[in-house]
Amino acid sequence: MAEVQLVVVGSIGIDTIGTPTAKREDVLGGSVSYACAAASYFTSVGMVGVVGNDFPDASMALYRQFGIDLEGLQVVPGETFRWSGVYHDDMNNRDTISTDLNVFADFSPDLPEAYRATPYVLLGNISPDLQLHVLDQIKNPQFIMADSMDLWINVARDDLMKVISRVDLLTLNDSEARLLTGEANAVKAARALLELGPRYVVLKKGEHGALLFTQDTVVMAPAFPLDHFEDPTGAGDCFAGGFMGALARARRHDTVDLREALLYGSVVASFGVEQFGLDRLAKLTAEQIDERFGLLGEMIDPA
Amino acid sequence: MAEVQLVVVGSIGIDTIGTPTAKREDVLGGSVSYACAAASYFTSVGMVGVVGNDFPDASMALYRQFGIDLEGLQVVPGETFRWSGVYHDDMNNRDTISTDLNVFADFSPDLPEAYRATPYVLLGNISPDLQLHVLDQIKNPQFIMADSMDLWINVARDDLMKVISRVDLLTLNDSEARLLTGEANAVKAARALLELGPRYVVLKKGEHGALLFTQDTVVMAPAFPLDHFEDPTGAGDCFAGGFMGALARARRHDTVDLREALLYGSVVASFGVEQFGLDRLAKLTAEQIDERFGLLGEMIDPA
Repeated sequence: MAEVQLVVVGSIGIDTIGTPTAKREDVLGGSVSYACAAASYFTSVGMVGVVGNDFPDASMALYRQFGIDLEGLQVVPGETFRWSGVYHDDMNNRDTISTDLNVFADFSPDLPEAYRATPYVLLGNISPDLQLHVLDQIKNPQFIMADSMDLWINVARDDLMKVISRVDLLTLNDSEARLLTGEANAVKAARALLELGPRYVVLKKGEHGALLFTQDTVVMAPAFPLDHFEDPTGAGDCFAGGFMGALARARRHDTVDLREALLYGSVVASFGVEQFGLDRLAKLTAEQIDERFGLLGEMIDPA
Repeated sequence: MAEVQLVVVGSIGIDTIGTPTAKREDVLGGSVSYACAAASYFTSVGMVGVVGNDFPDASMALYRQFGIDLEGLQVVPGETFRWSGVYHDDMNNRDTISTDLNVFADFSPDLPEAYRATPYVLLGNISPDLQLHVLDQIKNPQFIMADSMDLWINVARDDLMKVISRVDLLTLNDSEARLLTGEANAVKAARALLELGPRYVVLKKGEHGALLFTQDTVVMAPAFPLDHFEDPTGAGDCFAGGFMGALARARRHDTVDLREALLYGSVVASFGVEQFGLDRLAKLTAEQIDERFGLLGEMIDPA
C-alpha cells in the first residue's frame, strides 16, 4: 500500500437509523468510517479510531475493501460505540434516541509513528480535546481540516476555539456557525470564524450544498440534485472525506483546486446518502464519481 | 419609449411588513411591482394590474422612474389591494395578518391592443383564471412564464393545471412543487411538472437559489450570499422579472441563455431583499447588476 497521505480521526459507531420510510439496525457508521471511505477514492488514507472486540469481522473487511490503512485503528476490550436516531419527515433534522459511548469513552487518538508526518489531516467530529491531542502529535502538516458540531460548541467551547485557531480549514453547518459566533447571518458568521484563525471556512448546507469562504472570496459547491436518497447520515463526513481526499491527490491548494475538491466532496456525499450506511460507497467506482462530477459541472456552467 | 418586449401581469399591493428587527407600513409591493421593476433593467416592460384611486402619486412616479410602460395599468374607483404579514425569526417563513382585496376583487386583466403581440409574457402570481384570461388574449408569444403559489394549488387546481399546460416555463417554490405533484422528492416533483406540459420548470429555493429542469438536464443558479438583508418580500417576483427581462434582452433560449437569465434573476433578487419594498431596486444601476453577476460567476467557477 502507498504511504498514507491523509489521516482521518473520528468516531466509529454501530448505528440504528430510522427514516420516514425505513429502519435499519447495526449499520456501520461514525464520522471516520464515512470520511475514510469517501477519501479512499482519491488518496491513500489512514484511519484513527477505536472499536470494541465485538466489532464485526465483516465491517473490518469492508474497511480493507476500501483500501483504508488500519494501523491507527485501536481494537480494545468492550463494546463498540452505538448511536440510534430517527429522522423527521423533511429528512434534514433528526432526534437522537440513544448514545452508548462504550469503548469510545476512554478513546485516546494516539497516532502511529508512521502517521505523524502525514501531509493531510482531517479532524472528524469528535470532542475538541481529542482533536487537540491529535494536533499535538502531527509534524509539518500541509493542510488540516476540522469538523465539529453543536454539542461541542455548547459544552467545550474553549477547547474548540483552540482547535479552530490551529487548523487551515474549519467546516460547520450554517446553523452551527451561527451558534458559535452569535451572528444571525450565515455570511457574517463565516467571516467571524475566519477571524479566529483558519484560512478557510466551509459552511455546509446539506441538500443545498456548501460555501467556502476565504478572506477575499467565496466559492460555491451546490449539492447534486438527487431523485432518490435513503439515509442522510454521514453526508457531512463523506463531504469532508471527499474534499480532503481530492485535495491530497491534487497536492495544491489554489482556489481552483479548492473548488474542485468541494465539488468532489459534494459528489461523493451525494452517492453516500443514496443508501444506508456505507452500502452505496462500497459499490462506487471512480468512473461513477467522475461521471457525476462532470454532470455537476455542466449543471453549474453549461456554457 | 421602445415597444414593449415583456408584459407582466400580477398584483399591486400596499403592504405592511414585519420582520424580527423592523416594521414598515404602506410599502409599495405586489408581484407585478417587483417583477416589472426587476425586468426594467433588461428590457422594455409593460405592467398589467389594477390600483384604486387612492394609489399614491409617489408610487406611480416610481413606476415611471423605472421606465415601466403603464398603458395596461388600470386605475379604478376604490381602494388599492392591501396585504400585511410578519416574518418568522428565520426570515424564510411568514404569517399573513390580513388581506384586503379591495379593487383587486374585480380585476380583469385586459391587455391593451399594443400588448397582445408582445413576445415575452410573465404571468405573475395571481389566480389561475386571471392567468388564463391573459393567455386567451396574447398572440404568437415567444416565451411565457407562469408563477403561482400554494393558495391556488389548494383552491383552484383545475384552472392552474390548464395554465401549466399552456406555458413554456412554470416556476414554484420547492414546497409548492411537492404539494402540487404529491412527490416528496423535489427532483421527482420537478420532473412530474414537466409531464404537465411546460418545457421548463424552475424550482425556487429562496436563499439557496434556483434549479431549472428540462427534459434532459438541470441548470443551477445559486443565490448571491448576502451579509445583510432586510425584507424577503417579492424576492421570487424579482427573480422571475429579472429572468424574463434578461431572456427578452437575449432573444434566445438556448441552455446558456437560460442559465444567464437565471443568474441575472438571482442577482436582481439579491439586491431586492437588501431593503424594504422597492427601495433598493429604485437606486440600483446596470453597472451594479453586472458587477454582482460577475462576482457570482466567479464564485461558481473560479477557474
